[in-house]
Amino acid sequence: MEETTSKKGAKKAEAKAKKEAEKARKAAEREAAAASSSSAANTEDLAKENYGDIKTATGLPAGEFTKLEQIGEEHVGKTVKLRGYIQNSRMQGAKMAFVELREVGSWAIQGVVAASAEGKPVSRQMVKWIGGIKLESYVVVEATVQKPLEPVKSCRVSEFELHLTKVYVVATAPETLGMGFATANRAVGSLAEQEEAVDPNVEGLNISEGAPVASLATHLANPTMHKRAPVTVAIKKVRITVEKLFRDYLEERGFLNFHPPCLIGAASEGGANVFKLPYFDTEAYLAQSPQFYKQFEIAGGAQRVYCVGPVFRAENSNTPRHMTEFTGLDMEMEIAEHYHEVLHMLEGVLLYIFRGLAEKCREEIDLVRSVYPSEEFLLPEPGKEIRLTFAEGQALLRAEGPPEYADVKDEEDMSTPQEKALGALIKKKYNTDFYVLDKFPVDARPFYAKPDPENPKVTNAYDFFMRGQEILSGGQRLHLPAELEAHIRFKGLDPNQKGIKEYVDVFKSVGVPPHGGGGIGLDRVVAFYLNLPTVHLVSDYVRTPKRLLP
Amino acid sequence: MEETTSKKGAKKAEAKAKKEAEKARKAAEREAAAASSSSAANTEDLAKENYGDIKTATGLPAGEFTKLEQIGEEHVGKTVKLRGYIQNSRMQGAKMAFVELREVGSWAIQGVVAASAEGKPVSRQMVKWIGGIKLESYVVVEATVQKPLEPVKSCRVSEFELHLTKVYVVATAPETLGMGFATANRAVGSLAEQEEAVDPNVEGLNISEGAPVASLATHLANPTMHKRAPVTVAIKKVRITVEKLFRDYLEERGFLNFHPPCLIGAASEGGANVFKLPYFDTEAYLAQSPQFYKQFEIAGGAQRVYCVGPVFRAENSNTPRHMTEFTGLDMEMEIAEHYHEVLHMLEGVLLYIFRGLAEKCREEIDLVRSVYPSEEFLLPEPGKEIRLTFAEGQALLRAEGPPEYADVKDEEDMSTPQEKALGALIKKKYNTDFYVLDKFPVDARPFYAKPDPENPKVTNAYDFFMRGQEILSGGQRLHLPAELEAHIRFKGLDPNQKGIKEYVDVFKSVGVPPHGGGGIGLDRVVAFYLNLPTVHLVSDYVRTPKRLLP
Repeated sequence: MEETTSKKGAKKAEAKAKKEAEKARKAAEREAAAASSSSAANTEDLAKENYGDIKTATGLPAGEFTKLEQIGEEHVGKTVKLRGYIQNSRMQGAKMAFVELREVGSWAIQGVVAASAEGKPVSRQMVKWIGGIKLESYVVVEATVQKPLEPVKSCRVSEFELHLTKVYVVATAPETLGMGFATANRAVGSLAEQEEAVDPNVEGLNISEGAPVASLATHLANPTMHKRAPVTVAIKKVRITVEKLFRDYLEERGFLNFHPPCLIGAASEGGANVFKLPYFDTEAYLAQSPQFYKQFEIAGGAQRVYCVGPVFRAENSNTPRHMTEFTGLDMEMEIAEHYHEVLHMLEGVLLYIFRGLAEKCREEIDLVRSVYPSEEFLLPEPGKEIRLTFAEGQALLRAEGPPEYADVKDEEDMSTPQEKALGALIKKKYNTDFYVLDKFPVDARPFYAKPDPENPKVTNAYDFFMRGQEILSGGQRLHLPAELEAHIRFKGLDPNQKGIKEYVDVFKSVGVPPHGGGGIGLDRVVAFYLNLPTVHLVSDYVRTPKRLLP
Repeated sequence: MEETTSKKGAKKAEAKAKKEAEKARKAAEREAAAASSSSAANTEDLAKENYGDIKTATGLPAGEFTKLEQIGEEHVGKTVKLRGYIQNSRMQGAKMAFVELREVGSWAIQGVVAASAEGKPVSRQMVKWIGGIKLESYVVVEATVQKPLEPVKSCRVSEFELHLTKVYVVATAPETLGMGFATANRAVGSLAEQEEAVDPNVEGLNISEGAPVASLATHLANPTMHKRAPVTVAIKKVRITVEKLFRDYLEERGFLNFHPPCLIGAASEGGANVFKLPYFDTEAYLAQSPQFYKQFEIAGGAQRVYCVGPVFRAENSNTPRHMTEFTGLDMEMEIAEHYHEVLHMLEGVLLYIFRGLAEKCREEIDLVRSVYPSEEFLLPEPGKEIRLTFAEGQALLRAEGPPEYADVKDEEDMSTPQEKALGALIKKKYNTDFYVLDKFPVDARPFYAKPDPENPKVTNAYDFFMRGQEILSGGQRLHLPAELEAHIRFKGLDPNQKGIKEYVDVFKSVGVPPHGGGGIGLDRVVAFYLNLPTVHLVSDYVRTPKRLLP
């Protein structure tokens, strides 16, 4: 996704030139409009009730609003009422204007308005006024549906157009947008949040061609325009679908939804990278994961639980993969016989999500790919899921990976580049972008991970990968307090320290069944599935060490 | 729900006496067991493979576990494998023991184990060992299903019992529980979190009769036992159903789920009662509501959105209605013609929830009522929803309310006692526990509430009530930046102050359609519906100024 600096420079220059040309064209249009206006000013405006501010509208059409996706042959010749945003507009001489009316996402239609000889229902003044509506203003229109001479390529509703008879502005946009619609719908140009933005204000009917590219920082600083872009809407739909499929699959299997707290009394999992705040006469922390609380639910007899909610990391990492607040999808369940029941459940929910996306979000995936090209996400054949042990993964890296990994150790955790290299090897060998590494070494897992009873150097814990990047971490937990305390000590921690003691006490308070689970980063799943350059394009409100707004 | 101090004292004494009697009975049992043990010790244990720690089990039954709710006539005489908690146990002489095995919530069954003359499959040693299993230990059993001589009143599965042939402990409970199961299933005795708890450790087959009452503080300090109580499980089921119905209704109507941030850059809504924390080289705040973010979604073109997530209030209120972190159910939508579209949508979702609960959670509601008695929640007849204006509500209070409300003003907000008094009047008059007050005075609403264009003293904003208590606040918002800024000034605030400026800027950045919405406290809806003494019985993890654990 990255470009060289010189290429970027060239693009900037090109964008600048286009902008200049655009300015010149607009100036010419304005002159023409002014000329037509001075003559129009002398004529009585017989259409004045048919346009203007909604507050002064007397001729507002009654009845239900029609939605763009509903428009069909049966509407041709009929009068409809619609609402939406003016996405683009263009004067053609003094008597005619073209606009694009967008309802939501990529749903837009061309509107035409032409002054009639009689001066009503459309006058020259009305045409001029409509041509001058600020882009991204919200309007209500009355129009007759017609077939255009040829399909309107720039609009999703290409087989029909609106012959506007009434247009009222409900809320006007500013003279200059912080980021133009076409730019908002292009791939972000630079991931650096601090980088100065290319001036992106652009008009022109071809919405995604020729518009300047804006940096991620510009996108995030212009949330209303960023969110209005069809590509953002499509990514959002994919994210919503991932969450919905996660819930559906687990609820179908008896998992109960619960709400873990964000405010907690002790920095439970180590204490590094945790946000701390004054809390009345004491201090509180923001939960880094619902881990302990999922386990408390199991200890409380819940059998199977899941939760979806925010988790917090006070990590000063400014990368495309990190956020300080993100949405976690978490589950935990009792184990009847073997912890692979949990592994298979997690594999099941993810495969259900991936297969569900390919089916339910086909259109959105294709739209995102038209902006952020990516290859189809490859899945293993049903029943042939790829599960390697960590040691097998390391062996594969040593045997077939790049020379720098010829000596990787079975006892040491993998680095991110190592994971990516292994992902490439697995894809080549097994033709899948999704796989599991099981039996992580004890040194790579937290104190609550249950060691393999048959090989105490490794744990009953696993990571899941998408395109060589970790998206899920999970495993079996120690459920017997004596074993848990011993392992906490083995890990060099004190079972009586604040935060850990309260956790251990839960397992002492009652008999707790064997259990395991896993946690998924929602934004990561979407970003890796669509191969986006950053998770920041997935989150509704990106939080990084440098970003708390909007 | 509250008791007088003297009544409490009497109950404490009674509980103490019962506890003494219980102790004496247990001591006698232990002696009997020891006596039988010394003779048993001399006999070879032919059943030793059929019980003990799961780790040493060699005869663990293979195959699937049966669930208690599945057990029926077809199982009689058959061998099944089950897992669950030992909820109660009782020796009968040296040869026989009764246990209660609980799977989840109220699902329990009686197990019987009797030593056979041959000493297998059940020996005297085995019976003694089973009778001594610590309550709330987690076990795996093999048993034959039989019809009991008479229905087992103390268990939900009353028509069948288990003749135990193998019993293995998977995880043992401690000698003494922090709170007994029977007590956990009784109504909380005192809401004061700080009050010293009654010692609640109790045994006996009649789980909810005669067990001591524990304070809310004891319940919350013993989360595993509190959560295992059937009444808690039932409340949880109701809460899960409320959330699910909320999502279903809105998704069906085109609302998109989104995730507002918890971490925000400015104390947006006034700055009082907001948690503040160090955030790298600046400061952050915890969101008090998703209000601004719901509106940003609408400004971003989303049309209809909802969210479910935590909200935070740094309010030092130690009442049964307050928590510092709770789950909000929020929605926001475009308005086509009139803000009552929003009001009706919210009314619709709440009625859908109430009607859905009465249908889907009948059993749970009845179970909760057996512990926390309440009257059925009365709904208005379809099409006859009760909507009064705030002024009409005040007029009703003045005319028919208690004398102290004879002078309440239309321009002043209601107090909580006033709301309750009005609720009683409305219930008497209209036979409903659910109603809406519309057109709140400007002084009672925040700066973003849209004044009524026809009467600027009131707003297009409403509250919803359940049993005289507010559960929803909402209304139309100012969507035009000029009007918004003017109203901010009218409210005595500065539109350029940090937090407000960034909000106003969103409405300046594009044209934003008219919109409105509302927010519901999930825990409150459940607590008021079931008429529970406190919302703290609904939340999974209660957070108050004094409580950050577990």
